[in-house]
Amino acid sequence: MSSQLSQAALRDQRSQFHPFTAITDLMADGPTVMASGSGVRVTDVDGKEYLDGMAGLWCVNLGYGRKEITEAIARQSERLSFFHTFNGMSTDVVAECAEALLERAPVPMSRVFFGASGSDANETQLKLIWYYNNLRGKPEKKKIIARWNAYHGSGVATASLTGLPGMHTLFDLPKGPIIHVSAPYYYRKAPEGMSEREFSRQLAKELEDVIEREGADTIAAFFAEAVMGAGGLIPPPEGYFEEIGAILKKHDILLVADEVVSGFGRLGTYWGSQTYGYEPDLITSAKGVTSGYFPMSVCFISPKVWDVIEGEAAKAGLFGHGYTYSAHPVGAAAALAALKLIDELKVVDNVADVGPYMLQSLKDRLGQHANVGDIRGQGLMIGIELVKDRATKEVLPMADRTGRQVLKAAAERGLITRALGDTLVFAPPLVINRAEVDELVDKFALAVSDVLPA
Amino acid sequence: MSSQLSQAALRDQRSQFHPFTAITDLMADGPTVMASGSGVRVTDVDGKEYLDGMAGLWCVNLGYGRKEITEAIARQSERLSFFHTFNGMSTDVVAECAEALLERAPVPMSRVFFGASGSDANETQLKLIWYYNNLRGKPEKKKIIARWNAYHGSGVATASLTGLPGMHTLFDLPKGPIIHVSAPYYYRKAPEGMSEREFSRQLAKELEDVIEREGADTIAAFFAEAVMGAGGLIPPPEGYFEEIGAILKKHDILLVADEVVSGFGRLGTYWGSQTYGYEPDLITSAKGVTSGYFPMSVCFISPKVWDVIEGEAAKAGLFGHGYTYSAHPVGAAAALAALKLIDELKVVDNVADVGPYMLQSLKDRLGQHANVGDIRGQGLMIGIELVKDRATKEVLPMADRTGRQVLKAAAERGLITRALGDTLVFAPPLVINRAEVDELVDKFALAVSDVLPA
Repeated sequence: MSSQLSQAALRDQRSQFHPFTAITDLMADGPTVMASGSGVRVTDVDGKEYLDGMAGLWCVNLGYGRKEITEAIARQSERLSFFHTFNGMSTDVVAECAEALLERAPVPMSRVFFGASGSDANETQLKLIWYYNNLRGKPEKKKIIARWNAYHGSGVATASLTGLPGMHTLFDLPKGPIIHVSAPYYYRKAPEGMSEREFSRQLAKELEDVIEREGADTIAAFFAEAVMGAGGLIPPPEGYFEEIGAILKKHDILLVADEVVSGFGRLGTYWGSQTYGYEPDLITSAKGVTSGYFPMSVCFISPKVWDVIEGEAAKAGLFGHGYTYSAHPVGAAAALAALKLIDELKVVDNVADVGPYMLQSLKDRLGQHANVGDIRGQGLMIGIELVKDRATKEVLPMADRTGRQVLKAAAERGLITRALGDTLVFAPPLVINRAEVDELVDKFALAVSDVLPA
Repeated sequence: MSSQLSQAALRDQRSQFHPFTAITDLMADGPTVMASGSGVRVTDVDGKEYLDGMAGLWCVNLGYGRKEITEAIARQSERLSFFHTFNGMSTDVVAECAEALLERAPVPMSRVFFGASGSDANETQLKLIWYYNNLRGKPEKKKIIARWNAYHGSGVATASLTGLPGMHTLFDLPKGPIIHVSAPYYYRKAPEGMSEREFSRQLAKELEDVIEREGADTIAAFFAEAVMGAGGLIPPPEGYFEEIGAILKKHDILLVADEVVSGFGRLGTYWGSQTYGYEPDLITSAKGVTSGYFPMSVCFISPKVWDVIEGEAAKAGLFGHGYTYSAHPVGAAAALAALKLIDELKVVDNVADVGPYMLQSLKDRLGQHANVGDIRGQGLMIGIELVKDRATKEVLPMADRTGRQVLKAAAERGLITRALGDTLVFAPPLVINRAEVDELVDKFALAVSDVLPA
């Protein structure tokens, strides 16, 4: 195919080492090179248009080319293109943004800590958790529980938290005091005939057994996405967070809500914790806070944690953690514009309407397809798991790379999806309307048929 | 002082958890809140102007409010506000940026890997190094050597690489297979009467002893900044990299050049490795690549490493690492504008002229001050170490926080410096001219006198 590649594609192919890409695929097919975007659509260098069913990477929640955000970025960049927040410095726009974020937290929160990515934010959370337990005199309480199939970032420690073997094996991970428990993957992991609630209780029992085995006084925190994203688009079974939350509370273990994907409306509530009714001690957010227009992450710190940190501050001295781009003023301006738009455009209400509509449309269109095993999701996070056999849930042969085939067929038809193995996922911009959802579902169903003519 | 704080300062104080800040200081004094910037100057919300002797945090190399960069950001943000590079995707501007970066590398490099911060880039390097040694069949060759006083980031692993006790103690770091060797801190650590070259040989001997003790087949890489920044502004003694480099080469240990601060001209050459004449296998860069206007980092990967990764790609499959904001198109546009300006404005030449001029001016003005122990630096990275006694090098009482006092006196006089303990440091925009340097030196000398009337 290389002979047809654009100049930009050739330049990219020989210059960039791509994240989460198989080099052999890149060398064989060349990159797809985008050039512009507007609303829910992007256009590549050859002029081909795509409906972006993934909002970039679960992040362009307000769609491409939003003037209110690009203009806020341009204005702030001219006014003060950078300043930092080390050593008691700040900027006006960062102060305003910090306050606006606290006002939007799902539970009362004391402070926000800024960074530039979900990964750096979860690195911050890990360090904060150990710091907190040292300050409150519990130096043994340090282990972290995360779940298989979780995605919490790509730093050494956050990739360790992540529960995806493909991110561990060749990198010598996981490292550190991290324990993985089972994913709440009802479709694949619940015993035949078990109800969701029973499965949740089983997972809670597993958690409690781990805590008992390790000793509650050695376990500091539990990390969880509301709906698992990169690990296969897995919503929790009924009652999951209720069961888990009670155990964590009982053993004085912090609940870290990784809301990098779910925050700012994606599940049809402002926060994922509101969809499932749990109370985080720490929240990690990123992506939607600026709609991906500017790298920014935000850790929310509850009074429980902050009061210890502030109370012991005289003893602790300088807080020895932070990033150059913690609280970039241009990111803060982008975030303020995005937060305002989320309110004004009633984005959360739109998700609450369009999300279930999309899920139902996919079920109507593909629910009976012989190779569609499961269609699941919450709000505008939806996954379609392909199988060899609906009845037995037998998986497709790995060598066929069926998920990737469907992804390519969809791209051919002008639709961007994402293949997590053979689970195809969608996380479109939250401003998508019903007509655009119809188009998405239609293109996707045709792409499935292209590869798997039922 | 709280009664005099601006609304913005109060808002910040009660909302933001600041990086690298003592909470007690923030609560007592309140934050200093910046509102605008132009050239080498920033202005706070009360209208007070400061000459920014630190270029933000060693990053605003081209000064504030550069229209060429802000306009490139605005244009790209409108055209394509985000797209990613996972799964073989890219954008035109990223392809162009990747190529432009490779053209500017100090030694032939095969690929660049993008991120959003120096921290995430060093996390990438660690993972790459382990990946590389697994792929080439050396699974035991994994330990990393870094140096005391080094700064390599704030992630769990990169703060572990960092050799600053204040970033370790309360966070349970360092973690991982990391060994620290001595800092090349000639002023403090060289035995009385030893020449720089002899001290370099002593440090090389220490390194060789560590390698012998651990076994060269267990050691993967050595990380080094060209001039140590946050750890005290420490340039290497004469011959240091020559001595060290030979040992690393002999034992097949990768040299990772952390050029986050030194890259893109700060030392008076385009790269720090060119100032000191060493050949890196991997380069970490950030900050100057966009002049801080947009969070971006770039890892440069040499043919030595890349050829193994590409050669084993079919076996390795998907490369399971990356960040949502790896290769943000708006960052790439900012970088392209910055790279062009570095060339057009002959920034590197300016540093080669103004850097030595500034160092000499500081020496002329403060070299005989009873409390000035050492004035050192390279290009536009300069440190002034204050002491109780010039002759004995006795340190000032820690409780006096003299460095901080001088920093505050300088701020009072409209100059921003940075206090690393009692070493005050400067890393002004690289476009600073001689008149502005005169002003900087004058204000600084007066601030020193305010606190330490010799």
